[in-house]
Amino acid sequence: MSSIWTQARRAARMNPSIIREILKVTEKPGILSMAGGLPSADTFPVDALKAACDKVLSENAKEALQYAASEGFAPLREWVAARVKALGMDVSPDQVLITSGSQQGLDLVGKILCDASAPVAVETPTYLGALQAFTPYEPSFISLASDEQGPLPEAFARLPHDAPGTRFAYLLPNYQNPTGRVMSLERRQAVMAAAKAAGVPVIEDNPYGDLWFDEPPLPSLSSMWPEGSIYLGSFSKVLTPGFRLGFIIAPKALYPKLLQAKQAADLHTPGFNQRVVYEVIKNGFLDEHVPKIRARYKANRDAMAEGLKKHLPAGCEWQSPKGGMFFWIRLPEGLDAMALLPKAVDANIAYVPGAAFYAANPDPRTMRLSFVTLTPELIAEGVAILGRVLGEALAAIPETTP
Amino acid sequence: MSSIWTQARRAARMNPSIIREILKVTEKPGILSMAGGLPSADTFPVDALKAACDKVLSENAKEALQYAASEGFAPLREWVAARVKALGMDVSPDQVLITSGSQQGLDLVGKILCDASAPVAVETPTYLGALQAFTPYEPSFISLASDEQGPLPEAFARLPHDAPGTRFAYLLPNYQNPTGRVMSLERRQAVMAAAKAAGVPVIEDNPYGDLWFDEPPLPSLSSMWPEGSIYLGSFSKVLTPGFRLGFIIAPKALYPKLLQAKQAADLHTPGFNQRVVYEVIKNGFLDEHVPKIRARYKANRDAMAEGLKKHLPAGCEWQSPKGGMFFWIRLPEGLDAMALLPKAVDANIAYVPGAAFYAANPDPRTMRLSFVTLTPELIAEGVAILGRVLGEALAAIPETTP
Repeated sequence: MSSIWTQARRAARMNPSIIREILKVTEKPGILSMAGGLPSADTFPVDALKAACDKVLSENAKEALQYAASEGFAPLREWVAARVKALGMDVSPDQVLITSGSQQGLDLVGKILCDASAPVAVETPTYLGALQAFTPYEPSFISLASDEQGPLPEAFARLPHDAPGTRFAYLLPNYQNPTGRVMSLERRQAVMAAAKAAGVPVIEDNPYGDLWFDEPPLPSLSSMWPEGSIYLGSFSKVLTPGFRLGFIIAPKALYPKLLQAKQAADLHTPGFNQRVVYEVIKNGFLDEHVPKIRARYKANRDAMAEGLKKHLPAGCEWQSPKGGMFFWIRLPEGLDAMALLPKAVDANIAYVPGAAFYAANPDPRTMRLSFVTLTPELIAEGVAILGRVLGEALAAIPETTP
Repeated sequence: MSSIWTQARRAARMNPSIIREILKVTEKPGILSMAGGLPSADTFPVDALKAACDKVLSENAKEALQYAASEGFAPLREWVAARVKALGMDVSPDQVLITSGSQQGLDLVGKILCDASAPVAVETPTYLGALQAFTPYEPSFISLASDEQGPLPEAFARLPHDAPGTRFAYLLPNYQNPTGRVMSLERRQAVMAAAKAAGVPVIEDNPYGDLWFDEPPLPSLSSMWPEGSIYLGSFSKVLTPGFRLGFIIAPKALYPKLLQAKQAADLHTPGFNQRVVYEVIKNGFLDEHVPKIRARYKANRDAMAEGLKKHLPAGCEWQSPKGGMFFWIRLPEGLDAMALLPKAVDANIAYVPGAAFYAANPDPRTMRLSFVTLTPELIAEGVAILGRVLGEALAAIPETTP
């Protein structure tokens, strides 16, 4: 059969998702999975969605069920433009493009900005799904030196020399996937000044920004250099991922090309879904709903922080995230999170090995734990098991000669 | 701003959709649009969808609103595999990939099969949306010589010599968009034998197959060469386009790569939409519903056929389609459908100039008329206006010296 079909060169670079394969493993009944970044299903506003489906199909069925504009549903675009004002952004609804989840935003950005071998800068580590979205467009990934606050401004200063023609830097300023880290105001300002000085525009991905625990979000990166930034947002973490609704906010000069890419990709995001979500959120629903998600996730975060402190062997390192969905653990020397995964699954828990999140030089000692899918009780149980698996693995490491 | 962003080479080949621009023009209130391929909104099964939304959100909300498998909802994939048996296809649910409309199927196919400059063969003329989906992957389009039954088998025989390495031929066997033509059984067999002999696999796009008026569909092209065919289907024309649901059926060897492309593009098609549609169709709903659409569209087809016969000036040529949504008109010498469009819009009607549907050597004398959006009465009115516009244009052509 391989003789009938000739695949594109880019197809050879696309590989099965490790996360996807892991999610399959974690379908084992009863497993305590801290792997997938699945929002707690208890937070889905089922009644509000049910009422909105009924209303849209009672009042606007013909429009909601027909083909629609590629840009998206106008009132939803207006809502988004108004909403991001809180992040210091001053954008027109004409700059908002509704996407089929923010994953599609990444695909469209890759499609219009990436050429084979042209550099694309990413954080170290970075969101695996972004690497997967950009990879088919064959960029050359540059892994920006990063610390617990995100990428270092100095790393941008080196780009014009080390990677001339870098098309963009892909950044997640809030509760980053996978590390949970957040960029301080000073870091944001320094990074954006350095990006601008280096002439490297920024793709800002902000799926977790609303999930803060103690302090509301800082101004977005895009607010600091609007004409050099594309902002990606999502309804997956504050309402439901099952509706696949996200958005792009783009400079006016780039918008038409993103719109053409969107139209070629799937004509438009389901109009029904857009109208239902707009119906739910239009009168301030999120202002009541999201605090409940925050409170729940904060309690989960606390449960995991307590469990990690109690159960993880000496030598493990982590920071307690100030929002979002993830802890990022670095294991003691001699341990390999990927190699340990089968043992963990045997012991009825799952996590994501951190190596998958690196564009280059993966650190095998890292892992990502989600604290949002399980209850605090099950988190405590899962982390206890993790502590035991790690302890046994450490004990099995042969003594090295000094 | 252009100095900040460097666009991908492929972006330069992407252009605003003429159809999209035309749809904008036709938003003029009260215009009689025969332009867009919009299914009649009166056929949308609103009550069935409302009941299904309620049922899914009452019984399976947590699953329907959560992230889901990239392959699609398993029962829906099983339904598709069973459904295409009627077209002579013997496929496993494992070969079915649910897509965000069949437009996304085209994008995914382009992504894994098209390289810059590699030939892709298309009918003359062909579906504009497919040209738009493939174009970002920079293929070199080959326009297959075609007649009123579709592409000529001889055109395939020439491909190995004229366009070696042709990645695939993109074919629409049933009530083709834009021409409305259908491939006879003999033509299907001859084309698939010729494609196989030439070593050129086939992408079969069948959004209109269920919309037959007198004779049920012939066996699919894919049934004649399963390992050399990808089949694309859609729920847009038999249920609603607003849910954006389509599917790909692929040979098992190609499926994993399409799945990776799907995951990178948008993770998965909305699980909610898949479950709602499955809930509507699982017990034979389409067997009652689609005949109603057929009867309506047949009456519309008859109204347009009668109007064209009555009102179009001598020298216009067309065939009456046996299904689908479109008439394809060829105007007398000296007329240009694109140049006439502003006059038509002034006269309160719209159509799509046929030139947009050619990969090469557009025929400016062609136009596409949809007969499914308007009622028979408005079709009669619209065609009468078209006849007047064409008559006036013909009268304005200066006499040429013999």
